[in-house]
Amino acid sequence: MSRNDLFLRVCRGEAVSRPPVWMMRQAGRYLPQYRAIRAQTDFLTLCKTPELACEVTLQPVDLIGVDAAIIFADILLPLEAMGCELRFEKGEGPVFPRPVRDRAAIDQLSRPDVDATLGYVFEALRQTRHALDSRPPERRVPLIGFAGTPWTLASYLVEGGISKSFAHLLGWTWRDPDGLTALLDRIAEVTIAYLRGQIAAGAEALQIFDTWGPLLDEARWRRMVMPSLMRILDAVGGTVPRIFYAKGAAHLLDSLAELPVEVLSVDWRQPLDTVRRRLSRDVVLQGNLDPTVLLAPEAVIRAATTELLEQGRGGGHVVNLGHGILPMTPPEHARVFVDTVKEIGDRYVG
Amino acid sequence: MSRNDLFLRVCRGEAVSRPPVWMMRQAGRYLPQYRAIRAQTDFLTLCKTPELACEVTLQPVDLIGVDAAIIFADILLPLEAMGCELRFEKGEGPVFPRPVRDRAAIDQLSRPDVDATLGYVFEALRQTRHALDSRPPERRVPLIGFAGTPWTLASYLVEGGISKSFAHLLGWTWRDPDGLTALLDRIAEVTIAYLRGQIAAGAEALQIFDTWGPLLDEARWRRMVMPSLMRILDAVGGTVPRIFYAKGAAHLLDSLAELPVEVLSVDWRQPLDTVRRRLSRDVVLQGNLDPTVLLAPEAVIRAATTELLEQGRGGGHVVNLGHGILPMTPPEHARVFVDTVKEIGDRYVG
Repeated sequence: MSRNDLFLRVCRGEAVSRPPVWMMRQAGRYLPQYRAIRAQTDFLTLCKTPELACEVTLQPVDLIGVDAAIIFADILLPLEAMGCELRFEKGEGPVFPRPVRDRAAIDQLSRPDVDATLGYVFEALRQTRHALDSRPPERRVPLIGFAGTPWTLASYLVEGGISKSFAHLLGWTWRDPDGLTALLDRIAEVTIAYLRGQIAAGAEALQIFDTWGPLLDEARWRRMVMPSLMRILDAVGGTVPRIFYAKGAAHLLDSLAELPVEVLSVDWRQPLDTVRRRLSRDVVLQGNLDPTVLLAPEAVIRAATTELLEQGRGGGHVVNLGHGILPMTPPEHARVFVDTVKEIGDRYVG
Repeated sequence: MSRNDLFLRVCRGEAVSRPPVWMMRQAGRYLPQYRAIRAQTDFLTLCKTPELACEVTLQPVDLIGVDAAIIFADILLPLEAMGCELRFEKGEGPVFPRPVRDRAAIDQLSRPDVDATLGYVFEALRQTRHALDSRPPERRVPLIGFAGTPWTLASYLVEGGISKSFAHLLGWTWRDPDGLTALLDRIAEVTIAYLRGQIAAGAEALQIFDTWGPLLDEARWRRMVMPSLMRILDAVGGTVPRIFYAKGAAHLLDSLAELPVEVLSVDWRQPLDTVRRRLSRDVVLQGNLDPTVLLAPEAVIRAATTELLEQGRGGGHVVNLGHGILPMTPPEHARVFVDTVKEIGDRYVG
């Protein structure tokens, strides 16, 4: 074994000795080593300091033993690159003090050179790839890049931050869908350049997050979310595996099956075998342990992970959580999850 | 016409001249007349002052022309009756300063006499029924009572308020499902007495809200949410029509079809014709206009309402929103919605 490429091989539909495992938000607050860095560095500064971003990206590889690294960054960074002031306020999440809610505001957005504005992410990717090469083969894992869908980015930008009702965003879809589409197209342009830059800098797979698309019924999802998303997926196709994650998308499965992606990542609300049965095409599935399982005693984690492996049979399976790991998760519980996959995963392939 | 009983007749599966229409949260902040009362009265005091609760319950009947009234109250009131301190803090929603997170805390809960602790709701119902009798026949509409599912009530009580991840609640389902079930059973006991009291006081239909049940996959929903819910539904069966509302429940449709309810109320994520096709039994459907449609220009509201009526064909349909009306909704837009149903609804029955 010259490196651990289980993750990439499953993404490409190849046979493997066991399913690979990683966790969304695996570089994050549940790790004391991450919190130690954050105690001295605010969130955005951490994103923008390649040495530190590289360091926290590698923490779960070294501490938890995951089979893939995902670069530490935030989905909203491309919006800041477009000239939108972005703040992360304690306990409040992201805040855009000047929300974009009409065509005039769209015209104010810049068309950034991604190397000049997001080069710190590319540099973090380069450093991480380099650092991974010095790991022992087992920990020399693939590196994942990522972005949000234009819809999900717009949901924060239009609302001015996190929202309960998404009234401004959804209201815009009724009032002026073409105007909102113009915003989504502008975000897509930047996202394409951003993802290509990530690939050039060493990302070996890309995950696209659509956290808020499933707010919409299927007809509106196809109208509002899908076109700019398709453009992005097409633009990076043929290079590296594409993973699409949507949260609460049980009502969108028919449309998700149409996406040109190698991997569909689903949340915990539907068992993988149900998803696989309902999808109209073969696709590698990623997921989908409820992150709150990792708050339970170890025996419960082992049992739930075993059940997840069983449900994942019948096709390619990248073991993951159904949503990001929770900040209050004990790191040793994350290790039980990962170790269980490593210990018994070979019984659940093919 | 001695009274407007369209709503009750559709709930009972009878033929009607047009679908009835009302709106979740129709007695609420979008109405200036409601805000005028709230400017002088905090939320909990309003709930507990029958004259005022009656007044705001009737506002949408008189101002918007809906075909049903729903008593003004809050789903969390039974928890306060059980001895849980409950505060509504501006901009924060409900807060339980002493969350219930283990069996010892469950043992501290009281078994309240609902007449003594929730009699103000019953009195508001009586006054509202009386006041409705003095309305002209068109506005002499049925009065709906309601409660939350024990799971949804517990979600606030266990978290201590609104949550993003519901980590305490969901963690409890893994750690000690029987303990959490004991809490749900205690809440169900009170809820049964509370709903029977509402019927005795004049509620002519009951809506049960399960806002947070759909966080769970179907197997866990059946294990955690369904048993106490079934007990409640059985306890009030045969008296008045039962309506069940769940938000984001596309993955639970098979189980929802098993509930002994006369009406299923669904959110906006799936068109009613899709829901009707996927359900394994005939049931009256309620819903499901996206509340953000009411932020759009009037022509958009008319078109979306017409489409909703079309989608509702093929079975009983109580026209409603897919979630509560948003506070920023212009009241005249709510009227356009209601008026459109009244004007053209007769084309969409049978």
